[in-house]
Amino acid sequence: MKRVIAADIGGTNIRLALIEEDGTIVDEKRSRAELSRHRLRSQYNAELHVINTLADIIAPFAELHGVNRIGMGFPGFFHSQSGRLASSPNLPLLQDFALTERLAKELGMSVAVENDALCAAIGEHRYGAGKGQNNLLHITLGTGIGSGLILNGMPYSGEHGMAMEFGHLCIEHHDGLLCGCGNHGCVEAYASATAVIRSFTERTGEQHDAKAIFALAQAGNASAQAVLQDAGKYLGMAIAEAVKLLDVSTITLSGGLSGAWEILHPALMSELDVNLIPPLKGKEIVLRSTLDDNAGLLGAATIAFGI
Amino acid sequence: MKRVIAADIGGTNIRLALIEEDGTIVDEKRSRAELSRHRLRSQYNAELHVINTLADIIAPFAELHGVNRIGMGFPGFFHSQSGRLASSPNLPLLQDFALTERLAKELGMSVAVENDALCAAIGEHRYGAGKGQNNLLHITLGTGIGSGLILNGMPYSGEHGMAMEFGHLCIEHHDGLLCGCGNHGCVEAYASATAVIRSFTERTGEQHDAKAIFALAQAGNASAQAVLQDAGKYLGMAIAEAVKLLDVSTITLSGGLSGAWEILHPALMSELDVNLIPPLKGKEIVLRSTLDDNAGLLGAATIAFGI
Repeated sequence: MKRVIAADIGGTNIRLALIEEDGTIVDEKRSRAELSRHRLRSQYNAELHVINTLADIIAPFAELHGVNRIGMGFPGFFHSQSGRLASSPNLPLLQDFALTERLAKELGMSVAVENDALCAAIGEHRYGAGKGQNNLLHITLGTGIGSGLILNGMPYSGEHGMAMEFGHLCIEHHDGLLCGCGNHGCVEAYASATAVIRSFTERTGEQHDAKAIFALAQAGNASAQAVLQDAGKYLGMAIAEAVKLLDVSTITLSGGLSGAWEILHPALMSELDVNLIPPLKGKEIVLRSTLDDNAGLLGAATIAFGI
Repeated sequence: MKRVIAADIGGTNIRLALIEEDGTIVDEKRSRAELSRHRLRSQYNAELHVINTLADIIAPFAELHGVNRIGMGFPGFFHSQSGRLASSPNLPLLQDFALTERLAKELGMSVAVENDALCAAIGEHRYGAGKGQNNLLHITLGTGIGSGLILNGMPYSGEHGMAMEFGHLCIEHHDGLLCGCGNHGCVEAYASATAVIRSFTERTGEQHDAKAIFALAQAGNASAQAVLQDAGKYLGMAIAEAVKLLDVSTITLSGGLSGAWEILHPALMSELDVNLIPPLKGKEIVLRSTLDDNAGLLGAATIAFGI
């Protein structure tokens, strides 16, 4: 069976996996790697640092498995025409960078790269809860909110590779909470894991991670239930806006916060229904990811297989 | 040069045109026709009434010009797979109706039909201000707000033909104005011609149509200027949401209210910029339609030509 290397690039972690065409993850490796270094001052040095860091981690893994084809999910925006990395919020020195070509040359391998949130959507569409759907909106609920879109069976990345900034849809136009992007009222400021954690602390004075808050909610803690219901409600509001524009029927959710499914999902569905126009009401299904953490890796494998 | 018949179907008016492949409108005819009759009670009768009414108007015009190919913009939602009319808000008796096939059989002509707002987008993309763009969001500011989307050069109509319900994006989540769709806070309730007329009356007690309000604004009337600036501002807010999801660079506006361009456009651009995330700021252009009322007809011609 054909095999490729898949890579999921985070700010401080790199996950590599050997994946077969049916989606089986045969081997996996996690490495720590600081791609963004503050002492790097020039684009030239930043490019060199990124290429060398990636190559040093990938090459031995690829060699070990005798595979010369890699797909990668990378946190950044890619020009849809040229495939160049336009920019990366966490690596501001990289601008209009031919990441794919440079890495392919350095590794002597075939390399395919795509935005990390879009990779998760591609993986969920190919191997997960969105399998067989013509259109899919996939949302990752983590520290922030990422998302990716499949339209007519194909990944859609927009004019500047910045499509599906779903996390920055505005759901509160008056005195909205400040978002990491600098704007106010973004759904990310209300429904990410970070937002849930902050909201719980504001209510109770206690500090817990998202998993613990979910456990508290299950045990009947009213504050924990309320913050998770609120997160679901705000997500439902934002999903309604996306559905009114895109008329997608299937929405999948992954990421830490989707663990609170039993509370999140009913709150989300009820608010989604309220906000849709009548002919769209009841036409949407929102599913929990069946791949979760592995959606990005499996999407990276998909682009490497070229399927 | 190849010629087709284009039809733009409204609630009480039907426009027909003979159009050449370069977009020249050679001949045009307007007819009154009540497609929705309240005494029709069965779907069977409603279908018959629509087919007969359309055929009676189209056949003589087609015969006169010796043309046997027609494209039509129709107010309704079309299944993207089957091409059947799923539903039409103004003609509720029509459900899952094979409009295209039935009309083709009745006329003995080749017939292509698409949603009217999407037709306007197709026309603007093929012959108007959106010519040559890969992606386009076209918005029609009339009694309501319609819109259509071109992605990767192709019309995008969504899973149930209901994509781009742009007019029903929510821009006010608290005590928003009631919209015709039954929800509150839709941009259509704030920035359609109807909304501007109502808002002006609320401010001044005077009743004027949109054109007159624009003339007053140009003559320095502060209330007229304020309601048009508000409409622009709300449009900018809604366009920002669409851009965050779709990353389209070119937005075109047509319809009566776009006549107030000098006031509408600056208010819109400034609010759009405020609401975009930083990497998208400054990347959008919003253009006034160069086809205006004819965008729908030219889009209908485009689908008839099969281009």
